[in-house]
Amino acid sequence: MADTLSDDEIAAQLPDGWDRDGDEIVRTYEFETYLGGVGFAAGAGGLAQEAFHHPEMTIGWREVEVRLTTHDAGGVTEKDIELAERFEELV
Amino acid sequence: MADTLSDDEIAAQLPDGWDRDGDEIVRTYEFETYLGGVGFAAGAGGLAQEAFHHPEMTIGWREVEVRLTTHDAGGVTEKDIELAERFEELV
Repeated sequence: MADTLSDDEIAAQLPDGWDRDGDEIVRTYEFETYLGGVGFAAGAGGLAQEAFHHPEMTIGWREVEVRLTTHDAGGVTEKDIELAERFEELV
Repeated sequence: MADTLSDDEIAAQLPDGWDRDGDEIVRTYEFETYLGGVGFAAGAGGLAQEAFHHPEMTIGWREVEVRLTTHDAGGVTEKDIELAERFEELV
């Protein structure tokens, strides 16, 4: 099981645009169209399934909020950082 | 602009599985796989765009919570009921 990262490690490793929110890391992606956001969520869902690490994604009006945490570790781990970095490549 | 429905109208017209939550109607759909939920959200997003009426959809682990409201009417209207009925045809 992955170890949780320290506050300093999270701050150092968090990709640009992401914030820490307690036991989670979060980013809201904005899109020019509603379907742009839907398509992003579908693509991110594929990457999540490949990594078998599943974010919570809320699709709104031209935006998608993504939240990542590692439930079985009880906090933020390398798995969250790695998946966040992969999501960055989609936009 | 669509008129908001009365409490009785909402209760009478809400599709099975949907609940009213204040100014919104909500249903959580469950799926056998994570990607089943992702695919549902993508399909529902297409129907939403076609209707130009956009729900909030939260994709979690093998479930998707869908919330509908008509922002410019300030409550639940026929547009919400109609889109909820179309989502029911996806599952």
